[in-house]
Amino acid sequence: MCSGSPCASCKLLRRRCTKDCIFAPFFPADEPHKFTIVHKVFGASMSRITQLLLELLAQQQGNAVSSLVYEANDRMRDPVYGCVGAISFMQNQVSQLQMQLAVA
Amino acid sequence: MCSGSPCASCKLLRRRCTKDCIFAPFFPADEPHKFTIVHKVFGASMSRITQLLLELLAQQQGNAVSSLVYEANDRMRDPVYGCVGAISFMQNQVSQLQMQLAVA
Repeated sequence: MCSGSPCASCKLLRRRCTKDCIFAPFFPADEPHKFTIVHKVFGASMSRITQLLLELLAQQQGNAVSSLVYEANDRMRDPVYGCVGAISFMQNQVSQLQMQLAVA
Repeated sequence: MCSGSPCASCKLLRRRCTKDCIFAPFFPADEPHKFTIVHKVFGASMSRITQLLLELLAQQQGNAVSSLVYEANDRMRDPVYGCVGAISFMQNQVSQLQMQLAVA
């Protein structure tokens, strides 16, 4: 997947980016912030993320990376609740809308 | 925080559980599954979680651990979308309810 320059993951982790690098398709060199955030939230080794991707079908890996980037961004924004804060907020919103609908 | 037996984290990581163990208040020995899941999802060293907790006020740490356990559980249940799947589902639910309310 890497041609010439290393992907954002290999660059940050100072690794040789080989043609079968599992991160390369999802963390291109021109979007370094995506990997920086995931790396910051999910730990230094990224071994768990690698394992997670390897356990998925190829066509699921892109969505898995997107959801991990989303989670990591939310955890950076809100270190206490992360994206669980959004879930809790929306659960309240759904309850209120359901109540309003019952009245109307 | 530890008295006698080590907390669930120190037991799993085979560490000495000292009285200032940051995990002990949140991962008691009688709830080993809570730590097992967080450990599985957030990586082997848990260094990022330790750092996250240390950056928070003491009164925020319990909520942060709860949200991490929630996220980790959701990622185990749904390795592709994790709790972002729930967010996406609820966003649709909110849109539909808002539409229904506009009609009613």
